[in-house]
Formats: sequence, structure tokens, C-alpha cells
Amino acid sequence: MDIKAYIREMREKVDDALRRIFPQSDGFEKELISSMRYSLFAGGKRLRPILCIASCEAVGGDESICMPVACALELIHTYSLIHDDLPSMDDDELRRGKPTNHMVFGEAMALLAGDGLLTEAFYLLSSASFAKKVGSDRSLEIIRIISEAAGFRGMLSGQAVDIRSEGEKKDKSVVEYIHRHKTGALIRASVISGGMAGGGTENQIDALSKYGERIGLAFQIMDDILDVEGEIDKLGKHVGMDEKRGKLTFPSVFGMERAKEINLNLIDEAVSYLNCFDSRAEPLREIALYIINRTG
Amino acid sequence: MDIKAYIREMREKVDDALRRIFPQSDGFEKELISSMRYSLFAGGKRLRPILCIASCEAVGGDESICMPVACALELIHTYSLIHDDLPSMDDDELRRGKPTNHMVFGEAMALLAGDGLLTEAFYLLSSASFAKKVGSDRSLEIIRIISEAAGFRGMLSGQAVDIRSEGEKKDKSVVEYIHRHKTGALIRASVISGGMAGGGTENQIDALSKYGERIGLAFQIMDDILDVEGEIDKLGKHVGMDEKRGKLTFPSVFGMERAKEINLNLIDEAVSYLNCFDSRAEPLREIALYIINRTG
Repeated sequence: MDIKAYIREMREKVDDALRRIFPQSDGFEKELISSMRYSLFAGGKRLRPILCIASCEAVGGDESICMPVACALELIHTYSLIHDDLPSMDDDELRRGKPTNHMVFGEAMALLAGDGLLTEAFYLLSSASFAKKVGSDRSLEIIRIISEAAGFRGMLSGQAVDIRSEGEKKDKSVVEYIHRHKTGALIRASVISGGMAGGGTENQIDALSKYGERIGLAFQIMDDILDVEGEIDKLGKHVGMDEKRGKLTFPSVFGMERAKEINLNLIDEAVSYLNCFDSRAEPLREIALYIINRTG
Repeated sequence: MDIKAYIREMREKVDDALRRIFPQSDGFEKELISSMRYSLFAGGKRLRPILCIASCEAVGGDESICMPVACALELIHTYSLIHDDLPSMDDDELRRGKPTNHMVFGEAMALLAGDGLLTEAFYLLSSASFAKKVGSDRSLEIIRIISEAAGFRGMLSGQAVDIRSEGEKKDKSVVEYIHRHKTGALIRASVISGGMAGGGTENQIDALSKYGERIGLAFQIMDDILDVEGEIDKLGKHVGMDEKRGKLTFPSVFGMERAKEINLNLIDEAVSYLNCFDSRAEPLREIALYIINRTG
């Protein structure tokens, strides 16, 4: 299959859906909505929504069913980037080749825009029309999975440990904790929630969860690798920042060669967990390979 | 009835429930959890949870049913205070007589603690045990009401307009927009969600909604008044800050006398909407009066 065409097609569908969710406003809340829209439409890869859709399809569900979940995941991812870029966090001025949110709207508005995107994700996930399609119990389960992954049990602990371990000694268990939580948790939740929305069985969700765990970790390791070996034009952000900040990364802790080896193994494992699926899981297989072959 | 005893009793129950939700941790996430706990147990009045419980009881529900909702509301309120106190927002060093979160844990951790509290609210609201008690559809409805009130459709728009209108000319429609959104929306949602958890009818929820709208606005007007006439010891925060920051407030826009008049009218109206309830709504009636008689 042509995975690039698949990704392009799904990305457009996600963008359309996001545009419908976030219409512009002329009311008092105009600037806040502009600030949210600015980061939401700043050229994201839509990896999490696409993983969600691909998982939904792998279990036999239609892409339209899981679209509110796919959008909610992108809102959460975007919020995490806005807050992560703030001066008190990573203090980044550039994201995907554009000025970061606070560079354009100021810190206060960027803070609120992030809060708004996070909150809106749960508004979407609790919609009556979505519950009608997948069932109220499944809706609630999906909210539980995603809030667990995005909160202090997941992503936020990864970020908290990440900022505190800058310049610390190179500890393997710490860097793995950071990566599994900061990036891995939400990617795994994207895959699980897509499978749930598509009506996956317990065994299928379990296989998707293991697949998601591996590619989630692999994705962040690849980010580390690209920060050393990538090109600014393709990444849309400065390179060499991890070293400059003294961040714990897989290349810095395990060495570059070993980091790449670990990554290949993770992707091998991830794909093997998809054996119980038929050809409808082909996009998931291809995305796993795409993660370690990407340059941006 | 002795409203002070009622508030004390409910406050203790809420505190107990919050303590059960947020156990301490010795893992990597220790500092993040400490930061969340610090603000959560910094002596809040628990007004929103108590309103939620009182509304649940007014429609005949038991306080234990709505406890997850009551806790979720307090998590959201606490998150909003942490983010509001940050240097890029109100830059407050003191809250309830104690150093604000970022003064103790630093800006980055305070940011993440706020994010964590907000996300955890939705984790609580989506719990299977709560859905079992009130029904999955009602659970989802409550998530919808609360996320609408807390997000860019409610609280966050109020905050966004608030920070942008500092030093602006005195506009009545703007100050009312700010107060209705920034403070009013979540207070109204507290009352509605409590009524929903308790199994209230459509008419009851409608009456609670009107009651909640009035007391929500009145509460923020009282905050404005206390910032002029209150005492630092009783308030646990500096006074005169609104004027110093050039904030739009009811006393500054309408004059103090008119602000107090508006407030009395709002409370009268609020209480009149409770006529359709029996004596079980007594706490709600008393809380309305408490709001305009409080000194801290």
C-alpha cells in the first residue's frame, strides 16, 4: 500500500473535522479562539489521529466513527506542545517552522489556549452523537483511557520528570520513564481508543495496546535521534537542542548505535503484535515502519 | 438551619474524598503529585463541591452519589487558581494566606500541576463506579456540562477577556461577560451537575440552572466588593489588587452602591427560583445568603 497517500488522505479528513469543530468567532472570545486555532492548524503531522483511525479500521470500524476521538487526541497533543514551548518549560521560539504560540499571542493567552484545547477534547469525547454511535459505556471508557494517558498518570509525569532531570546523570530507567510517559502514553491511548471506537474485541484491544506501547517509545527515541542527525528544514525546529539543554535522551544515555538498535527491535515487536489482524491493519504496519524512517 | 455547620460538615467530607483520590507517591511523579496536593489542600472553601452536594440533596439524591462530581469541580477550580496566579497571568504570590504554587514549586511544575488537576477531573467523572450509580448517559451529560463551563465556551473566555481588558475603559457589557464566564459558568455547572447526579427532573435542573447563574455572578461581584472593603486577614490575600491592576470590576464600573444593589437583587432572584423545591433545598437558600454576607 501507499502509506504516504493514506497519511495524506487521513490528514485531510482530520483537518476538515478540526476546522468544523473550531469555527472562527467575532465575540469577546475571538483572540482566545484565534490562539487555539493558530497552533491547531500550524502544520501538525496528525500522527495520533491517524493512528486512532488506522486502529479503528484494523478492527473493522469506519473512519467516520472515531473522528471525534481522533480530533480530541490532536487537541490534547497540541495543548501539550503549547505548554511545553512556554518560557518556563522548554522556552522554544520555533515549532514546525513557525513562531510558537506565546511568541505570537503572549504567554497568558498561550497558557489559556492550551487549557482550552485540553478541556475541549473532553467536550468532544462526551458528545451525545458520538455516544449514540459507539455506546455510552464505550464513550466513558475512551474518556478514561485518554484522561489517564494525558494526566499525571501518563504524559504529565513524563514532562515533570523531563524538566527536573535536565543536566542530571545519565540514567537508563529515568530516560525510559520519561519517554514512555511523555510521548508513549498518549500514542498508546490513540491506538487503544481507535480500536475501542471501532468496536474491537478485548483481544484486539490488548494487541493494539502492545503495538501502541512499542511505537510510542520508538517515536520518542526517533525524535531524540533526529535532534542529533536531523535537518532543521525537514524538522521545522532547531536541532541539537536536547544536548544544549542537557536533556536525557536515548542516544545520550545508550549511545547512538544502541539507540537505533533498540528502536528497530521495538518496531519489529510492534508489527508482530499485529499478526492477529488481517489486511485492514496494513496502515498500522506501515506507520510503524514510517516512524523509524521519517526525517521530519 | 445552621448553614455554617452544614458547610463545615460537607467540607470535611469533600476533603476526605479528595485525600482518597490523591494519595502521596514515592515514584518519579512524586514532585508533580506534591505540587497538585499543595494547592488542593491549601484551605479552599470548597464552595463548588458544596453547591454540587446541596443541589444533589435538593432533588432528593444522597451526598455520596455526587462526590466524584464534587471532587472534580474542586480539581478544576484549583487548577484555574494555579494557572491564574502564574507570573504571566495575575502574578500573585499569596493565595489563601500561603505562597502560591509557583512560588513553592516553580513555574514549570505549577503549570503541569494545573494541567494535571484539570485532566484528573475528567478521569474522575468517567469512572465506571460513578456511571454505575447515575447511569452512563447522565455521566456523559455531566462531563459535557462541566467541560463546556470550564473551557473556551465558559471560564477560559472570561479569563482571556479579563487579562486583555486590564486598564481598558469601563464597559458594563465587558465586565458582565467576564464575571459570567470567569466565575459564573463553573458555579452554575456545579449546581446543574449536582442536580443531575441526584436524578433531578428537567424542570428541577432548569430551576437550578437559573439559581446557579445568579449566585455565580453574585459571588464574583462580592469578590470585587471584598477586594475594596475586605480585610487581608480574613481573605487570605492582598486587597486593593483589582484597582492596582486596572481590572474591570462591578464597583469600578457601576459604583459601589449600585454593585451592592445588583448583588442583593441577584440573590433575591436566585432564592425565588428555589420555590419549586421543598425543605431539602434549605442549604441552597442559605448558601445564597452566605455569599453576600461573607467576609472571606
